[in-house]
Amino acid sequence: MAEINRLSLNQITLANWSVSHAVEACVRHGIPSIALWRHKIEEAGLASCVRSVKDAGLHVSSVCRGGMFPSATAASRQKNLEDNYRAVDEAGALGADCLVLVVGGGAEVGLVDARKMVADGVAALAPYARQHGVKLGLEPLHPMYAAERSVLVTIGQALELASAYAPHEVGVVLDVFHIWWDPQVFPMIAQSQGRIYGFHVSDWLVPLPDLLLGRGMMGDGIIDNRMLRLAVDRAGYDGPIEVEIFNRVIWDTDPDQVLQQMVARFIAFV
Amino acid sequence: MAEINRLSLNQITLANWSVSHAVEACVRHGIPSIALWRHKIEEAGLASCVRSVKDAGLHVSSVCRGGMFPSATAASRQKNLEDNYRAVDEAGALGADCLVLVVGGGAEVGLVDARKMVADGVAALAPYARQHGVKLGLEPLHPMYAAERSVLVTIGQALELASAYAPHEVGVVLDVFHIWWDPQVFPMIAQSQGRIYGFHVSDWLVPLPDLLLGRGMMGDGIIDNRMLRLAVDRAGYDGPIEVEIFNRVIWDTDPDQVLQQMVARFIAFV
Repeated sequence: MAEINRLSLNQITLANWSVSHAVEACVRHGIPSIALWRHKIEEAGLASCVRSVKDAGLHVSSVCRGGMFPSATAASRQKNLEDNYRAVDEAGALGADCLVLVVGGGAEVGLVDARKMVADGVAALAPYARQHGVKLGLEPLHPMYAAERSVLVTIGQALELASAYAPHEVGVVLDVFHIWWDPQVFPMIAQSQGRIYGFHVSDWLVPLPDLLLGRGMMGDGIIDNRMLRLAVDRAGYDGPIEVEIFNRVIWDTDPDQVLQQMVARFIAFV
Repeated sequence: MAEINRLSLNQITLANWSVSHAVEACVRHGIPSIALWRHKIEEAGLASCVRSVKDAGLHVSSVCRGGMFPSATAASRQKNLEDNYRAVDEAGALGADCLVLVVGGGAEVGLVDARKMVADGVAALAPYARQHGVKLGLEPLHPMYAAERSVLVTIGQALELASAYAPHEVGVVLDVFHIWWDPQVFPMIAQSQGRIYGFHVSDWLVPLPDLLLGRGMMGDGIIDNRMLRLAVDRAGYDGPIEVEIFNRVIWDTDPDQVLQQMVARFIAFV
Protein backbone atom coordinates (compact mmCIF):
# COMPACT_ATOMS: atom_id res chain seq x y z
CA MET A 1 0.00 0.00 0.00
CA ALA A 2 0.97 3.62 -0.46
CA GLU A 3 2.42 5.42 2.56
CA ILE A 4 -0.39 7.25 4.32
CA ASN A 5 1.83 10.34 4.51
CA ARG A 6 1.39 10.66 0.73
CA LEU A 7 -2.37 11.15 1.05
CA SER A 8 -3.71 14.53 -0.06
CA LEU A 9 -7.30 15.75 0.08
CA ASN A 10 -8.30 17.43 -3.15
CA GLN A 11 -10.75 19.94 -1.81
CA ILE A 12 -13.37 19.25 -4.50
CA THR A 13 -14.06 15.91 -2.79
CA LEU A 14 -15.72 18.02 -0.06
CA ALA A 15 -17.14 20.59 -2.45
CA ASN A 16 -19.45 22.21 0.09
CA TRP A 17 -16.67 23.11 2.50
CA SER A 18 -14.57 26.25 2.71
CA VAL A 19 -10.76 26.15 2.70
CA SER A 20 -10.58 26.58 6.47
CA HIS A 21 -13.05 23.79 7.14
CA ALA A 22 -11.21 21.48 4.75
CA VAL A 23 -7.87 22.36 6.34
CA GLU A 24 -9.20 21.67 9.86
CA ALA A 25 -10.63 18.36 8.65
CA CYS A 26 -7.25 17.30 7.22
CA VAL A 27 -5.65 17.95 10.59
CA ARG A 28 -8.41 16.02 12.38
CA HIS A 29 -7.97 13.01 10.10
CA GLY A 30 -4.18 13.04 9.92
CA ILE A 31 -4.06 13.96 6.25
CA PRO A 32 -0.78 15.80 5.61
CA SER A 33 -1.54 17.48 2.24
CA ILE A 34 -4.34 19.37 0.56
CA ALA A 35 -5.11 20.61 -2.97
CA LEU A 36 -7.04 23.85 -3.20
CA TRP A 37 -9.45 25.08 -5.83
CA ARG A 38 -9.32 28.66 -7.02
CA HIS A 39 -12.99 29.49 -6.45
CA LYS A 40 -12.53 28.41 -2.83
CA ILE A 41 -9.31 30.42 -2.54
CA GLU A 42 -11.18 33.47 -3.83
CA GLU A 43 -13.99 32.92 -1.34
CA ALA A 44 -11.60 32.85 1.61
CA GLY A 45 -8.97 35.27 0.30
CA LEU A 46 -5.47 34.18 -0.68
CA ALA A 47 -3.70 35.56 2.41
CA SER A 48 -6.09 33.78 4.72
CA CYS A 49 -5.57 30.50 2.82
CA VAL A 50 -1.79 30.84 3.03
CA ARG A 51 -2.03 31.39 6.81
CA SER A 52 -4.52 28.61 7.22
CA VAL A 53 -2.42 25.88 5.57
CA LYS A 54 0.77 27.19 7.19
CA ASP A 55 -0.70 27.24 10.69
CA ALA A 56 -2.06 23.75 10.17
CA GLY A 57 1.32 22.50 8.92
CA LEU A 58 -0.24 21.22 5.69
CA HIS A 59 1.58 20.76 2.43
CA VAL A 60 -0.24 22.06 -0.69
CA SER A 61 -0.03 19.42 -3.40
CA SER A 62 -1.61 21.54 -6.11
CA VAL A 63 -3.80 24.47 -7.03
CA CYS A 64 -6.70 23.62 -9.34
CA ARG A 65 -6.77 24.98 -11.91
CA GLY A 66 -5.33 27.12 -14.65
CA GLY A 67 -5.72 26.53 -18.36
CA MET A 68 -8.88 26.98 -20.44
CA PHE A 69 -6.82 28.68 -23.15
CA PRO A 70 -8.95 28.34 -26.32
CA SER A 71 -11.34 31.14 -27.11
CA ALA A 72 -12.67 32.76 -30.26
CA THR A 73 -11.02 36.19 -30.00
CA ALA A 74 -7.51 37.41 -29.23
CA ALA A 75 -8.96 39.65 -26.51
CA SER A 76 -10.67 36.78 -24.71
CA ARG A 77 -7.57 34.61 -25.01
CA GLN A 78 -5.55 37.42 -23.46
CA LYS A 79 -8.08 37.66 -20.64
CA ASN A 80 -7.75 33.90 -20.06
CA LEU A 81 -3.99 34.27 -19.99
CA GLU A 82 -4.14 37.01 -17.39
CA ASP A 83 -6.34 34.81 -15.26
CA ASN A 84 -3.64 32.16 -15.57
CA TYR A 85 -1.03 34.63 -14.30
CA ARG A 86 -3.19 35.06 -11.18
CA ALA A 87 -3.39 31.29 -10.82
CA VAL A 88 0.42 31.14 -10.90
CA ASP A 89 0.56 33.86 -8.23
CA GLU A 90 -1.75 31.83 -6.02
CA ALA A 91 0.12 28.56 -6.51
CA GLY A 92 3.37 30.41 -5.74
CA ALA A 93 2.01 32.03 -2.58
CA LEU A 94 0.70 28.70 -1.33
CA GLY A 95 3.95 26.88 -2.14
CA ALA A 96 1.97 24.33 -4.17
CA ASP A 97 3.84 21.51 -5.89
CA CYS A 98 2.24 22.62 -9.15
CA LEU A 99 -0.52 24.54 -10.85
CA VAL A 100 -2.80 22.01 -12.55
CA LEU A 101 -3.72 23.02 -16.09
CA VAL A 102 -7.02 21.84 -17.53
CA VAL A 103 -6.30 23.23 -20.94
CA GLY A 104 -9.76 23.75 -22.42
CA GLY A 105 -11.92 22.04 -25.02
CA GLY A 106 -12.60 22.26 -28.72
CA ALA A 107 -16.28 23.20 -28.76
CA GLU A 108 -15.88 26.93 -29.31
CA VAL A 109 -13.13 27.06 -31.94
CA GLY A 110 -12.86 23.46 -33.18
CA LEU A 111 -10.31 20.81 -32.22
CA VAL A 112 -7.52 21.87 -34.54
CA ASP A 113 -7.47 25.52 -33.51
CA ALA A 114 -8.04 24.65 -29.87
CA ARG A 115 -4.93 22.45 -29.82
CA LYS A 116 -2.90 25.30 -31.28
CA MET A 117 -4.31 27.79 -28.76
CA VAL A 118 -3.40 25.43 -25.94
CA ALA A 119 0.19 25.17 -27.15
CA ASP A 120 0.32 28.97 -27.51
CA GLY A 121 -1.22 29.46 -24.07
CA VAL A 122 1.31 27.21 -22.36
CA ALA A 123 4.11 28.97 -24.25
CA ALA A 124 2.88 32.34 -23.01
CA LEU A 125 2.40 31.16 -19.44
CA ALA A 126 5.61 29.17 -18.99
CA PRO A 127 8.04 32.13 -18.64
CA TYR A 128 5.82 33.77 -16.01
CA ALA A 129 5.53 30.48 -14.09
CA ARG A 130 9.30 29.98 -14.29
CA GLN A 131 9.93 33.46 -12.84
CA HIS A 132 7.59 32.67 -9.96
CA GLY A 133 8.98 29.19 -9.34
CA VAL A 134 5.69 27.48 -10.15
CA LYS A 135 5.57 24.20 -12.07
CA LEU A 136 2.84 23.77 -14.67
CA GLY A 137 1.16 20.37 -14.59
CA LEU A 138 -0.70 19.44 -17.79
CA GLU A 139 -3.58 17.15 -16.92
CA PRO A 140 -4.87 14.98 -19.76
CA LEU A 141 -8.61 14.54 -19.29
CA HIS A 142 -10.85 11.67 -20.31
CA PRO A 143 -11.81 11.94 -24.00
CA MET A 144 -15.45 12.45 -23.04
CA TYR A 145 -14.40 15.97 -22.00
CA ALA A 146 -12.67 16.86 -25.28
CA ALA A 147 -15.44 19.22 -26.39
CA GLU A 148 -15.78 21.35 -23.28
CA ARG A 149 -12.81 20.88 -20.98
CA SER A 150 -9.66 19.50 -22.52
CA VAL A 151 -8.34 18.76 -25.97
CA LEU A 152 -5.47 17.05 -24.16
CA VAL A 153 -6.86 13.55 -23.76
CA THR A 154 -3.88 11.20 -23.51
CA ILE A 155 -0.69 11.09 -21.49
CA GLY A 156 1.27 10.83 -24.74
CA GLN A 157 -0.22 14.04 -26.05
CA ALA A 158 0.45 15.89 -22.76
CA LEU A 159 4.04 14.63 -22.71
CA GLU A 160 4.58 15.80 -26.26
CA LEU A 161 3.42 19.29 -25.32
CA ALA A 162 5.53 19.27 -22.13
CA SER A 163 8.65 18.13 -23.94
CA ALA A 164 9.24 21.63 -25.34
CA TYR A 165 10.10 22.73 -21.78
CA ALA A 166 12.54 21.75 -19.06
CA PRO A 167 11.41 18.74 -17.00
CA HIS A 168 11.17 20.89 -13.86
CA GLU A 169 9.03 23.54 -15.58
CA VAL A 170 6.22 21.75 -17.43
CA GLY A 171 5.08 18.23 -16.63
CA VAL A 172 1.98 16.07 -16.36
CA VAL A 173 -0.61 15.37 -13.71
CA LEU A 174 -1.95 11.81 -13.91
CA ASP A 175 -5.50 11.14 -12.75
CA VAL A 176 -6.68 7.55 -12.84
CA PHE A 177 -10.23 8.53 -13.80
CA HIS A 178 -8.90 10.16 -16.95
CA ILE A 179 -6.27 7.62 -18.01
CA TRP A 180 -7.35 4.11 -16.91
CA TRP A 181 -8.99 3.18 -20.25
CA ASP A 182 -5.87 3.91 -22.35
CA PRO A 183 -4.27 0.78 -23.85
CA GLN A 184 -0.97 2.72 -23.71
CA VAL A 185 -1.33 3.78 -20.08
CA PHE A 186 1.56 1.75 -18.63
CA PRO A 187 4.18 2.55 -21.28
CA MET A 188 3.09 6.19 -21.17
CA ILE A 189 3.39 6.39 -17.38
CA ALA A 190 6.90 4.96 -17.74
CA GLN A 191 7.69 7.60 -20.37
CA SER A 192 6.51 10.31 -17.98
CA GLN A 193 9.48 9.66 -15.71
CA GLY A 194 10.93 12.93 -14.45
CA ARG A 195 7.84 14.94 -15.40
CA ILE A 196 5.13 13.61 -13.10
CA TYR A 197 3.94 16.49 -10.95
CA GLY A 198 0.90 14.87 -9.39
CA PHE A 199 -1.17 11.71 -9.13
CA HIS A 200 -4.92 11.62 -8.48
CA VAL A 201 -7.05 8.65 -7.45
CA SER A 202 -10.80 7.93 -7.44
CA ASP A 203 -12.86 5.32 -9.27
CA TRP A 204 -15.01 4.79 -12.38
CA LEU A 205 -18.43 3.59 -11.30
CA VAL A 206 -20.27 1.04 -13.44
CA PRO A 207 -22.58 2.24 -14.79
CA LEU A 208 -21.26 5.78 -14.69
CA PRO A 209 -24.10 7.77 -13.09
CA ASP A 210 -23.16 11.09 -14.69
CA LEU A 211 -20.59 12.53 -17.07
CA LEU A 212 -19.38 15.10 -14.55
CA LEU A 213 -20.45 14.00 -11.12
CA GLY A 214 -20.14 10.25 -11.49
CA ARG A 215 -16.74 9.54 -9.93
CA GLY A 216 -16.60 7.08 -7.10
CA MET A 217 -14.52 6.37 -4.01
CA MET A 218 -11.56 4.06 -4.60
CA GLY A 219 -12.77 0.46 -4.50
CA ASP A 220 -16.29 1.21 -5.71
CA GLY A 221 -15.57 0.94 -9.43
CA ILE A 222 -13.47 -0.67 -12.13
CA ILE A 223 -10.15 1.21 -11.83
CA ASP A 224 -7.13 -0.67 -10.53
CA ASN A 225 -5.79 2.22 -8.46
CA ARG A 226 -3.00 0.18 -6.92
CA MET A 227 -1.58 -1.04 -10.20
CA LEU A 228 -1.57 2.49 -11.57
CA ARG A 229 -0.01 3.85 -8.36
CA LEU A 230 2.74 1.25 -8.52
CA ALA A 231 3.42 2.22 -12.14
CA VAL A 232 3.64 5.88 -11.17
CA ASP A 233 5.98 4.96 -8.30
CA ARG A 234 8.17 2.96 -10.66
CA ALA A 235 8.34 6.05 -12.88
CA GLY A 236 9.97 7.82 -9.95
CA TYR A 237 7.06 9.78 -8.50
CA ASP A 238 7.05 9.81 -4.71
CA GLY A 239 4.94 12.91 -4.05
CA PRO A 240 1.42 13.40 -2.73
CA ILE A 241 -1.49 11.34 -4.01
CA GLU A 242 -4.67 13.38 -4.23
CA VAL A 243 -8.13 11.95 -3.79
CA GLU A 244 -10.27 13.97 -6.20
CA ILE A 245 -13.91 12.97 -6.44
CA PHE A 246 -16.73 14.84 -8.15
CA ASN A 247 -19.84 13.11 -6.88
CA ARG A 248 -23.11 14.60 -5.73
CA VAL A 249 -23.85 11.78 -3.27
CA ILE A 250 -20.44 12.19 -1.61
CA TRP A 251 -20.92 15.95 -1.49
CA ASP A 252 -24.22 15.43 0.35
CA THR A 253 -22.63 13.04 2.88
CA ASP A 254 -21.23 14.18 6.24
CA PRO A 255 -17.64 15.25 5.37
CA ASP A 256 -16.06 13.57 8.39
CA GLN A 257 -17.65 10.32 7.35
CA VAL A 258 -16.30 10.82 3.79
CA LEU A 259 -12.80 11.46 5.12
CA GLN A 260 -12.87 8.44 7.39
CA GLN A 261 -13.86 6.25 4.45
CA MET A 262 -11.32 7.98 2.20
CA VAL A 263 -8.44 7.15 4.53
CA ALA A 264 -9.59 3.53 4.85
CA ARG A 265 -10.01 3.16 1.09
CA PHE A 266 -6.66 4.77 0.43
CA ILE A 267 -5.04 2.15 2.64
CA ALA A 268 -7.03 -0.70 1.12
CA PHE A 269 -6.93 0.22 -2.58
CA VAL A 270 -4.06 2.63 -3.26
CA MET B 1 -19.93 16.18 -50.54
CA ALA B 2 -20.22 12.40 -50.38
CA GLU B 3 -22.18 10.70 -53.17
CA ILE B 4 -25.75 10.22 -51.97
CA ASN B 5 -25.59 6.64 -53.26
CA ARG B 6 -23.20 5.91 -50.38
CA LEU B 7 -25.83 6.76 -47.76
CA SER B 8 -26.94 3.90 -45.51
CA LEU B 9 -29.55 3.98 -42.78
CA ASN B 10 -28.34 2.27 -39.66
CA GLN B 11 -31.61 0.95 -38.36
CA ILE B 12 -30.96 2.05 -34.76
CA THR B 13 -31.51 5.65 -35.90
CA LEU B 14 -35.18 4.67 -36.17
CA ALA B 15 -35.15 2.38 -33.15
CA ASN B 16 -38.92 2.06 -32.88
CA TRP B 17 -39.34 0.66 -36.38
CA SER B 18 -39.31 -2.92 -37.58
CA VAL B 19 -37.03 -4.12 -40.38
CA SER B 20 -39.83 -4.01 -42.94
CA HIS B 21 -40.84 -0.47 -41.99
CA ALA B 22 -37.23 0.68 -42.12
CA VAL B 23 -36.73 -1.00 -45.49
CA GLU B 24 -39.85 0.63 -46.95
CA ALA B 25 -38.70 3.99 -45.60
CA CYS B 26 -35.32 3.62 -47.30
CA VAL B 27 -37.06 3.01 -50.61
CA ARG B 28 -39.37 5.99 -50.07
CA HIS B 29 -36.41 8.30 -49.35
CA GLY B 30 -34.05 6.97 -52.02
CA ILE B 31 -31.58 5.51 -49.51
CA PRO B 32 -29.78 2.61 -51.21
CA SER B 33 -28.33 0.78 -48.17
CA ILE B 34 -29.36 -0.29 -44.72
CA ALA B 35 -27.66 -1.74 -41.62
CA LEU B 36 -29.71 -4.15 -39.57
CA TRP B 37 -29.62 -4.90 -35.85
CA ARG B 38 -29.87 -8.44 -34.62
CA HIS B 39 -32.74 -7.90 -32.16
CA LYS B 40 -34.75 -6.50 -35.06
CA ILE B 41 -33.74 -9.40 -37.31
CA GLU B 42 -34.90 -11.80 -34.61
CA GLU B 43 -38.22 -9.97 -34.28
CA ALA B 44 -38.95 -10.24 -38.01
CA GLY B 45 -37.25 -13.58 -38.69
CA LEU B 46 -34.09 -13.87 -40.79
CA ALA B 47 -35.79 -15.28 -43.92
CA SER B 48 -38.30 -12.46 -43.96
CA CYS B 49 -35.51 -9.88 -43.60
CA VAL B 50 -33.52 -11.43 -46.45
CA ARG B 51 -36.65 -11.30 -48.69
CA SER B 52 -37.47 -7.80 -47.56
CA VAL B 53 -34.10 -6.23 -48.43
CA LYS B 54 -33.85 -8.25 -51.65
CA ASP B 55 -37.30 -7.27 -52.88
CA ALA B 56 -36.55 -3.65 -52.07
CA GLY B 57 -33.23 -3.81 -53.91
CA LEU B 58 -31.35 -2.60 -50.84
CA HIS B 59 -27.72 -3.28 -50.08
CA VAL B 60 -26.93 -4.37 -46.49
CA SER B 61 -23.95 -2.39 -45.26
CA SER B 62 -23.59 -4.27 -41.97
CA VAL B 63 -25.19 -6.40 -39.32
CA CYS B 64 -24.93 -4.98 -35.78
CA ARG B 65 -23.52 -6.64 -33.84
CA GLY B 66 -21.38 -9.53 -32.75
CA GLY B 67 -18.70 -9.41 -30.08
CA MET B 68 -19.20 -9.11 -26.32
CA PHE B 69 -16.55 -11.79 -25.78
CA PRO B 70 -15.37 -11.25 -22.18
CA SER B 71 -17.15 -13.18 -19.47
CA ALA B 72 -16.17 -14.72 -16.17
CA THR B 73 -16.54 -18.43 -17.02
CA ALA B 74 -15.43 -20.62 -19.92
CA ALA B 75 -19.03 -21.79 -20.31
CA SER B 76 -20.41 -18.28 -20.68
CA ARG B 77 -17.63 -17.35 -23.09
CA GLN B 78 -18.50 -20.41 -25.16
CA LYS B 79 -22.15 -19.32 -25.14
CA ASN B 80 -21.12 -15.85 -26.34
CA LEU B 81 -19.07 -17.44 -29.09
CA GLU B 82 -21.99 -19.54 -30.28
CA ASP B 83 -24.11 -16.43 -30.41
CA ASN B 84 -21.39 -14.91 -32.59
CA TYR B 85 -21.62 -17.88 -34.97
CA ARG B 86 -25.34 -17.09 -35.38
CA ALA B 87 -24.43 -13.46 -36.05
CA VAL B 88 -22.08 -14.59 -38.81
CA ASP B 89 -24.87 -16.76 -40.26
CA GLU B 90 -27.18 -13.76 -40.33
CA ALA B 91 -24.62 -11.43 -41.89
CA GLY B 92 -23.90 -14.11 -44.50
CA ALA B 93 -27.56 -14.68 -45.35
CA LEU B 94 -28.13 -10.95 -45.72
CA GLY B 95 -25.01 -10.46 -47.85
CA ALA B 96 -23.84 -7.76 -45.46
CA ASP B 97 -20.52 -6.03 -46.12
CA CYS B 98 -19.44 -7.03 -42.62
CA LEU B 99 -20.48 -8.14 -39.18
CA VAL B 100 -19.73 -5.30 -36.77
CA LEU B 101 -18.00 -6.47 -33.60
CA VAL B 102 -18.50 -4.49 -30.41
CA VAL B 103 -16.04 -6.54 -28.47
CA GLY B 104 -17.17 -6.11 -24.87
CA GLY B 105 -15.97 -4.18 -21.82
CA GLY B 106 -13.73 -4.74 -18.85
CA ALA B 107 -16.20 -4.40 -15.96
CA GLU B 108 -16.81 -8.09 -15.33
CA VAL B 109 -13.29 -9.51 -15.60
CA GLY B 110 -11.01 -6.47 -15.52
CA LEU B 111 -9.33 -4.70 -18.43
CA VAL B 112 -6.32 -6.98 -18.79
CA ASP B 113 -8.26 -10.24 -18.94
CA ALA B 114 -10.99 -8.67 -21.07
CA ARG B 115 -8.45 -7.66 -23.72
CA LYS B 116 -7.13 -11.20 -23.82
CA MET B 117 -10.65 -12.68 -24.06
CA VAL B 118 -11.39 -10.34 -26.95
CA ALA B 119 -8.29 -11.49 -28.83
CA ASP B 120 -9.22 -15.12 -28.10
CA GLY B 121 -12.82 -14.54 -29.17
CA VAL B 122 -11.83 -13.02 -32.50
CA ALA B 123 -9.38 -15.89 -33.04
CA ALA B 124 -12.15 -18.42 -32.42
CA LEU B 125 -14.65 -16.60 -34.63
CA ALA B 126 -12.43 -15.76 -37.59
CA PRO B 127 -12.24 -19.28 -39.16
CA TYR B 128 -16.03 -19.65 -39.01
CA ALA B 129 -16.50 -16.20 -40.56
CA ARG B 130 -13.97 -17.02 -43.27
CA GLN B 131 -15.83 -20.25 -44.14
CA HIS B 132 -19.06 -18.29 -44.47
CA GLY B 133 -17.53 -15.42 -46.43
CA VAL B 134 -18.30 -12.84 -43.75
CA LYS B 135 -15.86 -10.06 -42.89
CA LEU B 136 -15.41 -9.15 -39.23
CA GLY B 137 -15.35 -5.40 -38.58
CA LEU B 138 -13.77 -4.42 -35.25
CA GLU B 139 -15.35 -1.19 -34.06
CA PRO B 140 -13.29 0.82 -31.58
CA LEU B 141 -15.71 2.54 -29.22
CA HIS B 142 -15.33 5.81 -27.33
CA PRO B 143 -13.27 5.31 -24.14
CA MET B 144 -16.30 6.20 -22.03
CA TYR B 145 -17.63 2.73 -22.95
CA ALA B 146 -14.50 0.83 -21.92
CA ALA B 147 -16.10 -0.60 -18.78
CA GLU B 148 -19.29 -2.00 -20.25
CA ARG B 149 -19.07 -2.20 -24.02
CA SER B 150 -15.62 -2.21 -25.54
CA VAL B 151 -12.06 -2.50 -24.34
CA LEU B 152 -11.12 -1.59 -27.91
CA VAL B 153 -11.06 2.19 -27.69
CA THR B 154 -8.71 3.42 -30.40
CA ILE B 155 -8.25 2.76 -34.10
CA GLY B 156 -4.63 1.85 -33.43
CA GLN B 157 -5.63 -0.84 -30.97
CA ALA B 158 -8.26 -2.28 -33.35
CA LEU B 159 -5.75 -2.30 -36.22
CA GLU B 160 -3.21 -4.12 -34.09
CA LEU B 161 -5.76 -6.83 -33.32
CA ALA B 162 -6.85 -7.01 -36.98
CA SER B 163 -3.28 -7.27 -38.26
CA ALA B 164 -3.09 -10.94 -37.23
CA TYR B 165 -5.58 -11.71 -40.04
CA ALA B 166 -5.80 -11.19 -43.77
CA PRO B 167 -6.97 -7.69 -44.78
CA HIS B 168 -10.15 -9.12 -46.33
CA GLU B 169 -11.02 -11.13 -43.21
CA VAL B 170 -10.72 -8.83 -40.21
CA GLY B 171 -10.81 -5.04 -40.45
CA VAL B 172 -12.11 -1.96 -38.69
CA VAL B 173 -15.35 -0.02 -38.64
CA LEU B 174 -14.81 3.68 -38.07
CA ASP B 175 -17.53 5.67 -36.33
CA VAL B 176 -16.96 9.40 -35.97
CA PHE B 177 -18.68 9.53 -32.57
CA HIS B 178 -16.13 7.09 -31.21
CA ILE B 179 -12.94 8.40 -32.84
CA TRP B 180 -13.21 12.18 -33.31
CA TRP B 181 -11.42 13.09 -30.06
CA ASP B 182 -8.28 11.04 -30.84
CA PRO B 183 -5.18 13.18 -31.50
CA GLN B 184 -3.99 10.31 -33.73
CA VAL B 185 -7.22 10.01 -35.70
CA PHE B 186 -5.91 11.14 -39.09
CA PRO B 187 -2.67 9.11 -39.15
CA MET B 188 -4.62 6.10 -37.84
CA ILE B 189 -7.28 6.41 -40.55
CA ALA B 190 -4.48 6.50 -43.10
CA GLN B 191 -2.95 3.37 -41.53
CA SER B 192 -6.33 1.62 -41.83
CA GLN B 193 -6.01 1.59 -45.62
CA GLY B 194 -7.19 -1.74 -47.00
CA ARG B 195 -8.97 -2.73 -43.79
CA ILE B 196 -11.82 -0.22 -43.53
CA TYR B 197 -15.07 -2.18 -43.65
CA GLY B 198 -17.47 0.59 -42.67
CA PHE B 199 -17.82 4.27 -41.83
CA HIS B 200 -20.49 5.71 -39.51
CA VAL B 201 -21.51 9.34 -39.10
CA SER B 202 -23.49 11.27 -36.46
CA ASP B 203 -22.49 14.11 -34.14
CA TRP B 204 -21.29 14.83 -30.59
CA LEU B 205 -23.72 17.27 -28.98
CA VAL B 206 -22.38 19.93 -26.61
CA PRO B 207 -23.16 19.37 -23.83
CA LEU B 208 -23.64 15.65 -24.32
CA PRO B 209 -27.16 14.99 -23.00
CA ASP B 210 -26.54 11.36 -22.11
CA LEU B 211 -23.74 8.79 -22.20
CA LEU B 212 -25.74 6.37 -24.35
CA LEU B 213 -28.53 8.29 -26.00
CA GLY B 214 -26.81 11.61 -26.58
CA ARG B 215 -25.72 11.36 -30.21
CA GLY B 216 -26.89 14.05 -32.56
CA MET B 217 -27.69 14.49 -36.24
CA MET B 218 -24.73 15.55 -38.36
CA GLY B 219 -24.32 19.32 -38.13
CA ASP B 220 -25.75 19.62 -34.62
CA GLY B 221 -22.50 19.06 -32.74
CA ILE B 222 -18.75 19.44 -32.74
CA ILE B 223 -17.63 16.63 -35.07
CA ASP B 224 -16.17 17.56 -38.46
CA ASN B 225 -17.87 14.74 -40.35
CA ARG B 226 -16.67 15.93 -43.74
CA MET B 227 -13.01 16.11 -42.80
CA LEU B 228 -13.19 12.60 -41.35
CA ARG B 229 -15.07 11.31 -44.41
CA LEU B 230 -12.46 12.78 -46.72
CA ALA B 231 -9.72 11.09 -44.69
CA VAL B 232 -11.54 7.77 -44.91
CA ASP B 233 -11.95 8.27 -48.68
CA ARG B 234 -8.24 9.02 -49.03
CA ALA B 235 -7.55 5.76 -47.21
CA GLY B 236 -9.35 4.02 -50.06
CA TYR B 237 -12.78 3.40 -48.58
CA ASP B 238 -15.58 3.98 -51.07
CA GLY B 239 -18.34 1.89 -49.48
CA PRO B 240 -21.57 2.80 -47.69
CA ILE B 241 -21.65 5.51 -45.04
CA GLU B 242 -24.04 4.64 -42.24
CA VAL B 243 -25.94 7.20 -40.21
CA GLU B 244 -26.11 5.66 -36.74
CA ILE B 245 -27.75 7.77 -34.06
CA PHE B 246 -28.78 6.71 -30.57
CA ASN B 247 -30.98 9.55 -29.40
CA ARG B 248 -34.25 9.44 -27.51
CA VAL B 249 -35.54 12.69 -29.05
CA ILE B 250 -34.89 11.43 -32.59
CA TRP B 251 -36.52 8.11 -31.72
CA ASP B 252 -39.63 9.99 -30.60
CA THR B 253 -39.77 12.05 -33.81
CA ASP B 254 -41.80 11.05 -36.89
CA PRO B 255 -39.38 8.72 -38.77
CA ASP B 256 -40.11 10.22 -42.19
CA GLN B 257 -39.19 13.61 -40.83
CA VAL B 258 -35.97 12.15 -39.41
CA LEU B 259 -35.07 10.58 -42.76
CA GLN B 260 -35.77 13.79 -44.66
CA GLN B 261 -33.47 15.68 -42.32
CA MET B 262 -30.91 12.87 -42.44
CA VAL B 263 -30.64 13.05 -46.24
CA ALA B 264 -30.32 16.84 -46.16
CA ARG B 265 -27.70 16.76 -43.42
CA PHE B 266 -25.76 14.02 -45.20
CA ILE B 267 -25.56 16.26 -48.25
CA ALA B 268 -24.65 19.34 -46.22
CA PHE B 269 -22.19 17.90 -43.71
CA VAL B 270 -20.81 14.59 -45.00
